[in-house]
Amino acid sequence: MTASPDEDTQFLTDFQNLLAARRNEVSFLDRDVSAEKIEDMLADANMAPSVGLSQPWRFVEVRSQERRKAVYQNFLHARQIEIETIEADKRAHYAKLGLTGLDSAPVHVAFFLDNSEQRGHGLGVSQNPLALNYSVALAAYTFWLTTYAHGLASGWVSILEPEAVTQALDVPSDWELVAYMCVGYSATALDGPDLEKRKWSRRQTLDPYFLKK
Amino acid sequence: MTASPDEDTQFLTDFQNLLAARRNEVSFLDRDVSAEKIEDMLADANMAPSVGLSQPWRFVEVRSQERRKAVYQNFLHARQIEIETIEADKRAHYAKLGLTGLDSAPVHVAFFLDNSEQRGHGLGVSQNPLALNYSVALAAYTFWLTTYAHGLASGWVSILEPEAVTQALDVPSDWELVAYMCVGYSATALDGPDLEKRKWSRRQTLDPYFLKK
Repeated sequence: MTASPDEDTQFLTDFQNLLAARRNEVSFLDRDVSAEKIEDMLADANMAPSVGLSQPWRFVEVRSQERRKAVYQNFLHARQIEIETIEADKRAHYAKLGLTGLDSAPVHVAFFLDNSEQRGHGLGVSQNPLALNYSVALAAYTFWLTTYAHGLASGWVSILEPEAVTQALDVPSDWELVAYMCVGYSATALDGPDLEKRKWSRRQTLDPYFLKK
Repeated sequence: MTASPDEDTQFLTDFQNLLAARRNEVSFLDRDVSAEKIEDMLADANMAPSVGLSQPWRFVEVRSQERRKAVYQNFLHARQIEIETIEADKRAHYAKLGLTGLDSAPVHVAFFLDNSEQRGHGLGVSQNPLALNYSVALAAYTFWLTTYAHGLASGWVSILEPEAVTQALDVPSDWELVAYMCVGYSATALDGPDLEKRKWSRRQTLDPYFLKK
């Protein structure tokens, strides 16, 4: 941004292009991501807002092939469970979706909430305890966005059993999994939601979601 | 972004500057924000990721002075409750924090979760029901970031009773409040967290939050 952000229309356009290009990436090139790059991107994630400036997040970079495989296996298991919860006439469609790049991504990053973090001194949490979870989700989304700003791509995998991931990564059992992301160089065109391409759902414009009071 | 985001270091720098400048704004100029601008920024928020491409969010632009006042009154009430939960030796400090720009902001925007939204068909929700909440939080954060890209500022207010806000805005009682934001033109320098300035907490660098597995 320039000193006068009011006039920085180029940044706004670039930022809006980023929002449009970002997708839940499910297909990665066989190309490594350096440890330095992961650390740079997590430093950006660490700039996310957190309630009371508590930084209740814990980031885990997962490179061990064994652990990544265990997480992918849990995805396959969780998908089998989830498909039973999907309306019958959507199940064949569901089974054909890619849904994850866990298998092709060279690196995974897990975002946990450590509820024992005291640095925010409870500010903002009494009425809204989920504000701590949201802080971690915002860090994960900051990571997601910055992977694109760094020329990479990433995806957030929700079809996982949180306890299985905590076990596979051997982290404290009271850490709460908020987001699990796969990251790497995209093997596909960066042209918006994969689920839209595959006709699972279609992104609607603002109108139906917007009220004035 | 250019066609080759790998090389677009200017955008990355600008994006990182945005992350560093963003703050929980608590002080706004007496300057209106046009309805068109709010709609543009909410259109950006609507580009946020959502689980299963469900867009479970509902955005409420609050301009009615009466409703904004009711929400601000609830903040004062909620703060009185919260201060009792803060460690005794931090209460005097807590009482001196600004904490909110609800009173000076010309516009408020509430971000609700409508749990009845069916458009994602349950994808990604079976193991992680909070993924719906997180989708709304990500939309609110997208709004937060884009207010800065538009030359404005905003703040997320967690010290509110969700049911009181739902009532004050007269929205369906089963909508779940995820974020409540005040927005306007900043009356202060955009130089990072207000809570850091006021020595409530200090942003730590990445190291203590980062593990490798």
